[in-house]
Amino acid sequence: MDPKALALRVDPERLRRRFEALAQIGATPEGGVHRPALSEAHLAARAWFRREIEAEGLTFRQDGAGNHSAFLACGPEGAPTLLLGSHLDSVPNGGRFDGALGVLAAFEALLAVRDAGLRLPVHLEAIDFTDEEGTLIPLLGSRAVAGRLTAEDLAAPRGGQEAFQAALARAGLTPEGLLTARRPPEALAGYLELHIEQGRRLLEAGADVGVVTAIVGIGSHRLTFLGRADHAGTTAMGDRRDAALGAAEFILAARRTVMDRFPEGVANVGWARFEPGAFNIVPERAVLGLEFRAPEMAQLEALERALVEAAHQAAQRHDLHLLVEPLGKHEPAPMSPLAREAIRQACQDLGLKPLDLPSGAGHDAQSLAPLCPAGMLFVPSVDGASHSPREFTPWEACLNGADALLQAALRLAHAVGGA
Amino acid sequence: MDPKALALRVDPERLRRRFEALAQIGATPEGGVHRPALSEAHLAARAWFRREIEAEGLTFRQDGAGNHSAFLACGPEGAPTLLLGSHLDSVPNGGRFDGALGVLAAFEALLAVRDAGLRLPVHLEAIDFTDEEGTLIPLLGSRAVAGRLTAEDLAAPRGGQEAFQAALARAGLTPEGLLTARRPPEALAGYLELHIEQGRRLLEAGADVGVVTAIVGIGSHRLTFLGRADHAGTTAMGDRRDAALGAAEFILAARRTVMDRFPEGVANVGWARFEPGAFNIVPERAVLGLEFRAPEMAQLEALERALVEAAHQAAQRHDLHLLVEPLGKHEPAPMSPLAREAIRQACQDLGLKPLDLPSGAGHDAQSLAPLCPAGMLFVPSVDGASHSPREFTPWEACLNGADALLQAALRLAHAVGGA
Repeated sequence: MDPKALALRVDPERLRRRFEALAQIGATPEGGVHRPALSEAHLAARAWFRREIEAEGLTFRQDGAGNHSAFLACGPEGAPTLLLGSHLDSVPNGGRFDGALGVLAAFEALLAVRDAGLRLPVHLEAIDFTDEEGTLIPLLGSRAVAGRLTAEDLAAPRGGQEAFQAALARAGLTPEGLLTARRPPEALAGYLELHIEQGRRLLEAGADVGVVTAIVGIGSHRLTFLGRADHAGTTAMGDRRDAALGAAEFILAARRTVMDRFPEGVANVGWARFEPGAFNIVPERAVLGLEFRAPEMAQLEALERALVEAAHQAAQRHDLHLLVEPLGKHEPAPMSPLAREAIRQACQDLGLKPLDLPSGAGHDAQSLAPLCPAGMLFVPSVDGASHSPREFTPWEACLNGADALLQAALRLAHAVGGA
Repeated sequence: MDPKALALRVDPERLRRRFEALAQIGATPEGGVHRPALSEAHLAARAWFRREIEAEGLTFRQDGAGNHSAFLACGPEGAPTLLLGSHLDSVPNGGRFDGALGVLAAFEALLAVRDAGLRLPVHLEAIDFTDEEGTLIPLLGSRAVAGRLTAEDLAAPRGGQEAFQAALARAGLTPEGLLTARRPPEALAGYLELHIEQGRRLLEAGADVGVVTAIVGIGSHRLTFLGRADHAGTTAMGDRRDAALGAAEFILAARRTVMDRFPEGVANVGWARFEPGAFNIVPERAVLGLEFRAPEMAQLEALERALVEAAHQAAQRHDLHLLVEPLGKHEPAPMSPLAREAIRQACQDLGLKPLDLPSGAGHDAQSLAPLCPAGMLFVPSVDGASHSPREFTPWEACLNGADALLQAALRLAHAVGGA
């Protein structure tokens, strides 16, 4: 790369001004933001982003899935586009960093290239993907771009059809339009996303930038332990078939299974329901919500088998039946070696300490990974706080991440553009 | 006792006819009955009982708490009354035996004494207590008779004031009237109740009649394990403070505690709720509904201490806080030695095999126990089924119980009457 490109940095003042302006939209008293996808606050954030793009003289684009982007024609005619981005929606009562930092850093990277008058082998686009958090359909916008949104997804939105249709109508979108957002893979030079870590590993390792190796695959099951409802006063302890015992045994066994045998995996029993659910009736059913994640498909499948086996053993030990209902699985998405190398090089040149790590959370990058070289950069999350108003990353760390995104983008542009 | 009294038996045909007629009132398709207290079906059952009393020419009585009874003046003027009884209400979708058998056997005992022209040292009364099952207020009628119904009880009926007032109005009762049902202890010669066991011990022991030693005391707590909500994908297993782990550890420890150290006690975790309750969030709170029972106060208190200690240890092991909220306690009610001896003697003379055992469930007898010699007889429950249409006791066993009630009543009448 030429010295001018190597010396390129984001404009810290401009980035900060926009970050703080955006954090006011949908702001909550606790210091976070409440911008569920296509809510009034989210639509206001999108409108604000569009005005900022137009005020900077970049080209504004919106596709059928409602993805908003700034386009910079800095490559040769007909060249593919390197996407940089994240999302402006939030979970209910979320934080100011999740998604927003990545969109604004991407926008700022385009402005830095534009301001420096750089020419690259590819065009650049800073994109805000619709509904990453899944208020309606998880990763809606990025999956639409990748052509991975199915009729099945549209038929079963979270929160129901009525809320989905109303949200689309508020944004001027239609179900048919969503499917038109697909882009041909040859038009995509790659995808890079800056995001907060949402964990504690970078801080614990004293690292500045996380180089994501893979976005974990996720599976979830509903497990039902089936025993017998009995009078809790008149039935001797030894005569019971208490479904709660199987559930309890499994919750402890699941943790042991992951910690002993799957150091890169995680599992969670996030909810439980005992039925009939009375103080004085021995539980006939104990229903658990199980989720498990691993960064490689073989690991994910082995973890699933081990957890289901642990559930069967827990059921058997307490004379219960077990019902296992798989609720879906998302494959792990390995990040591109090209993208990872570009990020590492950028860190090295910027004097930032990188750390390879998998992403335990889902991100839009997993939608793009099957189509083009995709990569992600993480910046540290204080206390690992995430999806919460407590979410915080020091501004210096945010700037480091934005510079690393910009420099990684320049490197990836050359790597994929062949120049 | 004179030979005529010793030879006295219930009329099996008359008892069976009434039992089957009563089982038709509020009958459910599954073969049980649905007669929650003061529901239309329960009121119909009460009206039927009143007609049967009057048809037999016995004196019908109703007190301010809606307790219905048949009175037989078979004692000297001014003598106290030996109550025999149970309840005609049921849990929702309950069985045909719970309560109904005890009321009809009591009524039949009076008829047998009347038919034989026996004179006793006391009067007899067959009573149907209002709302034993606690649709509105648990043991409403018997506690009213015992003067143990408080303004606090009336202020917080299960299901709310509106349903309570409506139910009272349907039955022509008033809150003020409930408190007038109290009887002076000197008017009560004793109380005997025949009931199904609702457990498996009599059948397992091959016994005909259970001689209840005590009605267990009951305590209940809401236990809240408090950890930290974290992203279930991005938070390493070792970094979590997962409230579900404390809850699971406690559920298993509670069972071990009871089985190892409290052979006469029971405990149940009948419901559970994890919060916030999402697949992808580590539970911050796990709330459990704990109930525990023991037949003696010292045991009940030791059991409570042991369970709370186990909960603290489970919380500590998983780096959680614990919130213990006691939700009330009912003292154990020992049955009267006089009544127990009367039942044992009756069994011996009838050639029935008795078995001493505590009652794990609450019964109207516990309301009366502090006032007068109270006792209970159990007959076997097939499969221990209870509060269910599956509830079943073979007719022969029901007759044995009714004869034992009659004979025990004659013996108790003499024991307390001094003749």
